[in-house]
Amino acid sequence: MKLGVCYYPEHWPESEWETQAAQMVDMGIAYVRIGEFAWSRLEPQRDRFSWEWLDRAIAVLAAHQLQVVLGTPTATPPKWLLDESPDIVAVGADGRRRGFGSRRHYCFSSRTYRAETARIVTAMAQRYGGNPAIVAWQTDNEFGCHNTTVSYSDEALRAFRLWLEEKYGNVETLNRAWGNVFWSMEYSSFEAVEAPSGTVTESNPSHRLDYRRFASDQVASYNRLQADIIRRYHPDVDIVHNFMGYSTGFDHHKVGRDLDIASWDSYPLGFLEQGRFAAAEKLAFMRQGHPDFAGFHHDLYRGCCNGRWWVMEQQPGPVNWAPNNPAPLPGMVRTWTWEAFAHGAEVVSYFRWRQAPFAQEQMHAGLHLPNGEPDVAAFEAAQVATEIAALDTGADRRSSVALVYSYEAEWIVEIQPQGEALSCYHWTYACYTALRELGLDVDIVSPQASLQEYRMVVVPCLPHADDRFVAELAGLTVPILLGMRTGSKTESFQIPGQLPPGALQTLIPLRIARVESLRPDHAEILTLDGADYRAHYWLEWVETALPALMSTAAGRGVWFKHTTATHPGIHYLATWPEAALLRKVMQAIAVEAGLAVEEVPPGVRLRRRGEVQFAFNYNAHPVTLASREYVLGEALIPAGGVAAWKGR
Amino acid sequence: MKLGVCYYPEHWPESEWETQAAQMVDMGIAYVRIGEFAWSRLEPQRDRFSWEWLDRAIAVLAAHQLQVVLGTPTATPPKWLLDESPDIVAVGADGRRRGFGSRRHYCFSSRTYRAETARIVTAMAQRYGGNPAIVAWQTDNEFGCHNTTVSYSDEALRAFRLWLEEKYGNVETLNRAWGNVFWSMEYSSFEAVEAPSGTVTESNPSHRLDYRRFASDQVASYNRLQADIIRRYHPDVDIVHNFMGYSTGFDHHKVGRDLDIASWDSYPLGFLEQGRFAAAEKLAFMRQGHPDFAGFHHDLYRGCCNGRWWVMEQQPGPVNWAPNNPAPLPGMVRTWTWEAFAHGAEVVSYFRWRQAPFAQEQMHAGLHLPNGEPDVAAFEAAQVATEIAALDTGADRRSSVALVYSYEAEWIVEIQPQGEALSCYHWTYACYTALRELGLDVDIVSPQASLQEYRMVVVPCLPHADDRFVAELAGLTVPILLGMRTGSKTESFQIPGQLPPGALQTLIPLRIARVESLRPDHAEILTLDGADYRAHYWLEWVETALPALMSTAAGRGVWFKHTTATHPGIHYLATWPEAALLRKVMQAIAVEAGLAVEEVPPGVRLRRRGEVQFAFNYNAHPVTLASREYVLGEALIPAGGVAAWKGR
Amino acid sequence: MKLGVCYYPEHWPESEWETQAAQMVDMGIAYVRIGEFAWSRLEPQRDRFSWEWLDRAIAVLAAHQLQVVLGTPTATPPKWLLDESPDIVAVGADGRRRGFGSRRHYCFSSRTYRAETARIVTAMAQRYGGNPAIVAWQTDNEFGCHNTTVSYSDEALRAFRLWLEEKYGNVETLNRAWGNVFWSMEYSSFEAVEAPSGTVTESNPSHRLDYRRFASDQVASYNRLQADIIRRYHPDVDIVHNFMGYSTGFDHHKVGRDLDIASWDSYPLGFLEQGRFAAAEKLAFMRQGHPDFAGFHHDLYRGCCNGRWWVMEQQPGPVNWAPNNPAPLPGMVRTWTWEAFAHGAEVVSYFRWRQAPFAQEQMHAGLHLPNGEPDVAAFEAAQVATEIAALDTGADRRSSVALVYSYEAEWIVEIQPQGEALSCYHWTYACYTALRELGLDVDIVSPQASLQEYRMVVVPCLPHADDRFVAELAGLTVPILLGMRTGSKTESFQIPGQLPPGALQTLIPLRIARVESLRPDHAEILTLDGADYRAHYWLEWVETALPALMSTAAGRGVWFKHTTATHPGIHYLATWPEAALLRKVMQAIAVEAGLAVEEVPPGVRLRRRGEVQFAFNYNAHPVTLASREYVLGEALIPAGGVAAWKGR
Ligand SMILES: [Zn+2]
Ligand SMILES: [Zn+2]
Ligand SMILES: [Zn+2]
Repeated sequence: MKLGVCYYPEHWPESEWETQAAQMVDMGIAYVRIGEFAWSRLEPQRDRFSWEWLDRAIAVLAAHQLQVVLGTPTATPPKWLLDESPDIVAVGADGRRRGFGSRRHYCFSSRTYRAETARIVTAMAQRYGGNPAIVAWQTDNEFGCHNTTVSYSDEALRAFRLWLEEKYGNVETLNRAWGNVFWSMEYSSFEAVEAPSGTVTESNPSHRLDYRRFASDQVASYNRLQADIIRRYHPDVDIVHNFMGYSTGFDHHKVGRDLDIASWDSYPLGFLEQGRFAAAEKLAFMRQGHPDFAGFHHDLYRGCCNGRWWVMEQQPGPVNWAPNNPAPLPGMVRTWTWEAFAHGAEVVSYFRWRQAPFAQEQMHAGLHLPNGEPDVAAFEAAQVATEIAALDTGADRRSSVALVYSYEAEWIVEIQPQGEALSCYHWTYACYTALRELGLDVDIVSPQASLQEYRMVVVPCLPHADDRFVAELAGLTVPILLGMRTGSKTESFQIPGQLPPGALQTLIPLRIARVESLRPDHAEILTLDGADYRAHYWLEWVETALPALMSTAAGRGVWFKHTTATHPGIHYLATWPEAALLRKVMQAIAVEAGLAVEEVPPGVRLRRRGEVQFAFNYNAHPVTLASREYVLGEALIPAGGVAAWKGR
Repeated sequence: MKLGVCYYPEHWPESEWETQAAQMVDMGIAYVRIGEFAWSRLEPQRDRFSWEWLDRAIAVLAAHQLQVVLGTPTATPPKWLLDESPDIVAVGADGRRRGFGSRRHYCFSSRTYRAETARIVTAMAQRYGGNPAIVAWQTDNEFGCHNTTVSYSDEALRAFRLWLEEKYGNVETLNRAWGNVFWSMEYSSFEAVEAPSGTVTESNPSHRLDYRRFASDQVASYNRLQADIIRRYHPDVDIVHNFMGYSTGFDHHKVGRDLDIASWDSYPLGFLEQGRFAAAEKLAFMRQGHPDFAGFHHDLYRGCCNGRWWVMEQQPGPVNWAPNNPAPLPGMVRTWTWEAFAHGAEVVSYFRWRQAPFAQEQMHAGLHLPNGEPDVAAFEAAQVATEIAALDTGADRRSSVALVYSYEAEWIVEIQPQGEALSCYHWTYACYTALRELGLDVDIVSPQASLQEYRMVVVPCLPHADDRFVAELAGLTVPILLGMRTGSKTESFQIPGQLPPGALQTLIPLRIARVESLRPDHAEILTLDGADYRAHYWLEWVETALPALMSTAAGRGVWFKHTTATHPGIHYLATWPEAALLRKVMQAIAVEAGLAVEEVPPGVRLRRRGEVQFAFNYNAHPVTLASREYVLGEALIPAGGVAAWKGR
Repeated sequence: MKLGVCYYPEHWPESEWETQAAQMVDMGIAYVRIGEFAWSRLEPQRDRFSWEWLDRAIAVLAAHQLQVVLGTPTATPPKWLLDESPDIVAVGADGRRRGFGSRRHYCFSSRTYRAETARIVTAMAQRYGGNPAIVAWQTDNEFGCHNTTVSYSDEALRAFRLWLEEKYGNVETLNRAWGNVFWSMEYSSFEAVEAPSGTVTESNPSHRLDYRRFASDQVASYNRLQADIIRRYHPDVDIVHNFMGYSTGFDHHKVGRDLDIASWDSYPLGFLEQGRFAAAEKLAFMRQGHPDFAGFHHDLYRGCCNGRWWVMEQQPGPVNWAPNNPAPLPGMVRTWTWEAFAHGAEVVSYFRWRQAPFAQEQMHAGLHLPNGEPDVAAFEAAQVATEIAALDTGADRRSSVALVYSYEAEWIVEIQPQGEALSCYHWTYACYTALRELGLDVDIVSPQASLQEYRMVVVPCLPHADDRFVAELAGLTVPILLGMRTGSKTESFQIPGQLPPGALQTLIPLRIARVESLRPDHAEILTLDGADYRAHYWLEWVETALPALMSTAAGRGVWFKHTTATHPGIHYLATWPEAALLRKVMQAIAVEAGLAVEEVPPGVRLRRRGEVQFAFNYNAHPVTLASREYVLGEALIPAGGVAAWKGR
């Protein structure tokens, strides 16, 4: 458990660097990320490199025993490069080339940009590879941010055609896989295929899914290009990338395979404002963030890179980019930091050392004010530094519940929502919330992950469940919950021949004959244990001989359970229950799994790391827990506060 | 009264065709529509035709005495044709060329595409013209769907200039007709005229109206191009096109002149979700559709082609294209089918035989599931087949009320709504609802139609009333209702010299000195027979010596009646009354016309075909009618059900 | 106090001109604006001028002693000119060239268009310069209307680069001023700078602010181009331009420096519908307009041109361009006219003489109906003409309160709202309303104006407060209110080194350490004099030793006052209080200033001109004032009416 900070020496007079480094050490900072976005300072003109300032900046940090994370500057190619090679620029779905003057304007498929990337990364790696102050390299910055994964440039189209040729071999196979006989969409060569854009009505979902897969693969190979070069020149160093919250544009699991550490940029207030939460929730949590937002991503990214993960950017105060930007409650930055450690983070790094008085992020708070005086978060960070030095939690451990989440599933539902409220991400998030409100620790895992050591497996929505995954589930002996749309599509985005849930019918004997998507203002009324609940958005017509555990008023079963000699309970849930009911369903399955569950107080979340149990109060009012010996805080947790104790 | 089905043999293994045809016959299907969308299978490369599979498919159907409706495949030109001739593609108002990969991407004005159309239709007509299994040809598919009537391509602009030259002869006449002196918009040649697009603020409404008329004429001439070729090679066959619901892009009456049968594609649930209905109505009717949606279009398209009409595509279950896609109530597909027959349909054809597991419409239900098993609608269709065989209703008859609807009127109000809530279509629909809630049967007719045999004529909104129409009204001796904006524009989209309602002042002595459009949240309070009602959206200031039958609280008259020796009552209505009040107005005029009226129960609609009176219950709850001898159903009509009896 | 009218002789048969001029005189009209928009009639082909019709039109008006305001026709370049020189056309932020067929399609930066402007204005000025009937020239029409100030054409980019070079001298200075080190946005030459458009995420706010300043300067120099030519050929004539309501695209103060008279186009109902008012307000004032809309702009434009101003276009009835277009209450046009005079207008001119039956504005009412008969406003205008002849008010006088408003401030807040509800204009408007509800007369002035003679100065929001302005405030001895964000930015759009409010800390010892923007549905509760109030949108964290006059529930001070030997009270307000509380704050400061204040009845506004006090009732119901001797109306003011008396 270490603290870090994001730092831009190039933004400040060199005369202040020494003081700033000393202040970092005083505050308890151990890691300093630098360098990303600095291309125009590292290479002001082609092949005219200015390494000296960066040499000196690293030297100053090293002299204070600060550990450096060095970012490659590829998220912001400079103007002279765009002027030389306009083909490096991405193109939007509207057909317009991205303009210069912000960031992430490049196209992942540009051959020129890949060559330029190799050139600048090689130059940096040659110069700084092996520098003992550098403990990690960050590739680029926030892949996919501002919806930049998908490009519609000529370069992207060219690469897509090659990708298709690689995948399908001949165009007749592609035509069959996509069902191009429909609406005379058949192609006679790969060169005839276009990007799925600008069509009169929706284009073929198979076409769009392959375009999303292709675009995601381009991110992965672009990241690999950088990682390979860095490893060549700096073999024993960690490579990290900083992912973002609610970022579904590319397959983070795939990118994670080429990293040593996953990290993400945690801005709980900005994402609350920007996200799909009800207005009442946005209001209730406006200065705390949604209770599950940080935790969900901690648990997600822990599953992206063999369990090693950081928070690379931690919100320290008001940001500048959400529709509204309030300040965190007093103590909230400390609580967020502790929550990350509780979920297993190695490092929590604040963004940024000092608020810049200029350019796009001048209203984004830092640990210090623009004039260099400490801001609120500086004191909270220093407090955490003291606290982590004093508290040995032991190592993080595997959770008891696996929640399966797939980026491909997200794309499938985005491409074919079928109902306006449908979203794989938000439904998975709802399942996560239900589990967390029961006090359960959760690992969010890819469908490629091993599930052997979990005591309960939840698959909220996995339209394309491949053979390996079906076999993995078949080999388990713990309760499993399959949610709506799981098994409803083949790899090619077709309905499986045996109808949904396809091959999963070998696990639970039922099939989906029809689906209804429902107006958001409509509710189906479900009854469970004598109480009435509401379900929304989606209703599958299940054909099965199994008895329903729960049905609609019209008698349509929506919750089924199948028990076999090896499986205590394989459950199928055919609708989207309201939160209270979803919690009941999860509770029943958790009990079946032998897990101890109890509802935690509203707005409170628990997380165990090693020997220590943490409690986080996301409410804007204090909450009182049982009295026991606390190693952090006390039974009365203030608004936005944290407490911790050893043992259960 | 016959049933049909839309069928795509190219989507299924040829080995299953024989079985499918046999199943059709078993189910009571008589008509099978095939071929539209199949261009890439009929001509995989230029001039390399593959007719054989279609020959065999037709032969299989013919062998089972199924009657074939053969569609031309022009709605989906294949990729090789676009690659050869990029100029066939339509261009949107945003200036972007339509992409390949869905449908309707062609431009009606492309000379190349007209030549290609002639080539493929000629080839098909040569091969299948005279084939006795083919009882009808369908031209193209759903003209104007996805807002494709208007194109802004160079080809369209070229054709528009020729159309203008044809209409105006010299550009000075055009300048005067459009009032181009305003804002220095005068042109010195037809070549100087542009499409009305991309202007800083609104372009000239006269310009826009002519562009809409032009675009509509292009659809008509494009359809005629196909119809002429088919008639040449297959002289004694019916030619049909399938129109859509809420489709106002082109003049369906004009296109109908070149057809033998009008048909339309009836998707009551999809259009409820997509349409401008109140949320409460969308909720109340979510699994039934709005009570007037199908009926309105049945009555509209019956007026498009000498009274002959079909439902070419009948919704059989959930669709895939509305914001939300619930399932019809049990029995609803049967009820919709019967309602079409009650309104006079010759054929009701379901879309589609079997749900495709691939491509864009994979979530669109069919009569069968993707795996070939019968879905819900298969049983309902079979029931209807049995019932129509048993019930002889006699031929459909003219309704007593004529409701005048003009596509040009729609364009005028779209171009110049003047108030955000104004819509000619929705106001006409409101008038239709009022009449139907009184149990009246209605013919929706063009302003070109003869009105001589109706007992009551309602003209909800006809801004441009030409001399022939004024004379037609003048020659009637039945009650007439003129609604707001009628007579308010000349042919050139100018205000008539004598002020609105222009020449209609010869029928009723009043004029409109001013109009107010009203915020949707504002209501004018009207009093009638001692009760208060609300009126919305529009208020005309009427100058007249006639006494007002109804006035606003401020004393502004909104309902006037003029009686002459020949006319029992010419009424003028100067606002948009709420439903209950509009019903009162219609009732008073119907009584004046000597029509028997009584309010039918809410959500129920009546329709007489020949000797039989039908009742349709669009409610989600049962309704009980009077007890009498029923030939279909009984006095207790279930939710979404139908009943019928002979006599009144 | 004189009446005028906008008149288009080219729209009517020449045979009617004589009659129309006589009617104008009868009605009491003294001024007639003509000529703008007439380019295609003045020069139907290049260099083929047709002056004769305009000669005759002016002669007819002159013969009736009507005073002519002659407009240059540059707002509507004709089609032949666009066809010759496509580079005169503006380009939108979407990259699309503006289409022909409406107005304002030219680019202010086009060198060709500036040359063409010089050519046509010179030709007009040569012909009509010195004509004694012409008492004023209007340049162009409604600069910036339809959001046309900013263009993204190649010509604009070229001019922007020159503008930058002029301002910064060398590109390194620009890079530093903009903080381009952030995100590698550094430029190596002015030629490398692009327009701030089409970027992936927001572009640099400094970049955008300079682009807005540049675009505004282009309007000013374009207007100056015309004014200089007119002055050369017609030296002793007034030059006027007609500004619009809620128009913030360019710096009207700067344009005003080249004019003799400011004028604006007052459409109270259209702007109520279009503007950011609550639905309840839109409903309550739908036929009157918002009580402060006309007054705010009267007081704003009075400050734009040395105190001389007109209403060039006064709404006479329903318009055609708002979402909904109701009619003014009876008498409302008279009331609006009187209100303009009460605020000091020299002339109120109605738009337009007669409603055109053709083209875009055919639904826009005039003083006469399309057929030439007088419409409602003709009678109200005639009444005002009689009334102004009988009432000598004396000259308008300086108000006691100065409200500082800056267009640059508006751009800064638009570029960086930081919270979705933030708007400099609307917050200034709220301050204006609070003052006016207290019966105070207000001058809205530029930060460049002298404030020496005011008794109270309110600065709602001035992020960039330059040295001159700070010195101006420092030299005052009256109460001053500084509102949120004032002093928060440098000229370069950076945060000042000493933190906000920058140099204003010399006036009041406090600084802003942090700002929070708040969801519109969140309220901070403030307590004043024992009552609870709500504040919204914005909350600054103020660091100061001053005691707070008002604080949030969490104890954060939001209202501070500093008193010195020379300054009775310099106030700082750190949030946006609800209307009732803002009124309390303004009242306390006004009392401090020794101003007599009392709340006027809701919906009523007062304004003094010379010796006469006017009262305007914007309610839809009558209001009764104290009984006294009225020179206009009486104590009972009808809905939408006016009353006036001499003395207090
Ligand atoms: Zn970031
Ligand atoms: Zn269809
Ligand atoms: Zn105007």
